[in-house]
Amino acid sequence: MNRHSGKICRKSKVKILKIDIMTLFPDMCRAVFNESIIGRAINNGILSVNAVNIRDYTTDKHGNVDDTIYGGGTGMLMTAQPVFDCYKALCKDETKPHVIYLSPQGKVFTQEKARELAKKEHIIFLCGHYEGIDQRVLDKIVDEEISIGDYVLTGGELPALVCIDALARMLDGVLPNEEAYSNDSLYNGLLEEPQYTKPAVWEGVSVPEVLLSGHHANIEKWRKEQQVEVTKRKRPDLFRN
Amino acid sequence: MNRHSGKICRKSKVKILKIDIMTLFPDMCRAVFNESIIGRAINNGILSVNAVNIRDYTTDKHGNVDDTIYGGGTGMLMTAQPVFDCYKALCKDETKPHVIYLSPQGKVFTQEKARELAKKEHIIFLCGHYEGIDQRVLDKIVDEEISIGDYVLTGGELPALVCIDALARMLDGVLPNEEAYSNDSLYNGLLEEPQYTKPAVWEGVSVPEVLLSGHHANIEKWRKEQQVEVTKRKRPDLFRN
Repeated sequence: MNRHSGKICRKSKVKILKIDIMTLFPDMCRAVFNESIIGRAINNGILSVNAVNIRDYTTDKHGNVDDTIYGGGTGMLMTAQPVFDCYKALCKDETKPHVIYLSPQGKVFTQEKARELAKKEHIIFLCGHYEGIDQRVLDKIVDEEISIGDYVLTGGELPALVCIDALARMLDGVLPNEEAYSNDSLYNGLLEEPQYTKPAVWEGVSVPEVLLSGHHANIEKWRKEQQVEVTKRKRPDLFRN
Repeated sequence: MNRHSGKICRKSKVKILKIDIMTLFPDMCRAVFNESIIGRAINNGILSVNAVNIRDYTTDKHGNVDDTIYGGGTGMLMTAQPVFDCYKALCKDETKPHVIYLSPQGKVFTQEKARELAKKEHIIFLCGHYEGIDQRVLDKIVDEEISIGDYVLTGGELPALVCIDALARMLDGVLPNEEAYSNDSLYNGLLEEPQYTKPAVWEGVSVPEVLLSGHHANIEKWRKEQQVEVTKRKRPDLFRN
């Protein structure tokens, strides 16, 4: 194998995660991923993120994407047709995309799920708005429902961006090195220790002396103790696990 | 009391919740609240949201807001000075603002917390970035740490926007009427039933017949049964509570 084919081989190994966001508010999504870790992953060529406007796919002559709810009730529901046609337009590759519907009904998102999703090839985040989406199209295209927590939000956009931020951090080559995230809170089941930067004395308060000592073993020992202490105090539930 | 003073009286009763977001990425925050329920609450005059750039308050001659971590470690930490000076600039009112630091170390955000925060007068959301913020300024100004879930994100901006979206929905006058949110998932401890809109038959699938019957009592009965069934199947943990 010559160097040229070796280069091709290496290149073809670079995994690119493709993400589409199906939304009625694509500009809001774009503004966020321009200024975040997601932007860095896109620039590094390991992630592509595309916000697609569901409204572009409606066949309604007035451009509507919602209608009243059968059986009565306040608010509007997104209709099945534009959602389904938008989805079909995004299914051009051989691999079936993994479709995630953001909903308070979903399984609660965790760091573990972020790691799992970072291994996929193509993910579609479907963002509902108003009172939600017609159940028939959800039954037809959705692989998984995810909730980012037990609270009600206006739409799926912020939850989708939260999931993408969390999983972008798990892609190889996004963070400077493994250390940068392996020390993060929750990555090892413990919360982070308190951290300090210059100046050594600020508003009359000094940083803990051990951190200025240069004694690496003592610093590591202090940090582990602090992690245990902080976790016990702030998140006893995590500590027990 | 004449009509004029009555009017003043009513006017003075309108509660405006003031929110400041302390961030290094104010544009990202603004893009989101222009296009969301937050924007509607702002336009209705019951919420004011202001994204303030912490960088505007640094006294560092190169405009830096971060520095290396004492004791060693990868990444940079936000320094205390610009955060504290930014905070002081926001404390002009008599009422001390309620300062929330978004962090995976915080108490996990819930619908109950959203309702509690919606009653405050002035909230500051402090968004960390990089590896976090010097502990000394956190100790000095933060009233409460909030996490939106057990996953690691790049910064506090998305979590702050999630909290603001959730609490904006709880402000009187944001949603069309109480019904619109009282039926939402989690509001009453049960998940929402499946919902359907026109057409009655889509891709060969009909909406459940009861919803077309016009028989209100039967519809209500069906909805309650579905709520219980959906909650049991998707979130047995909620059901048990």
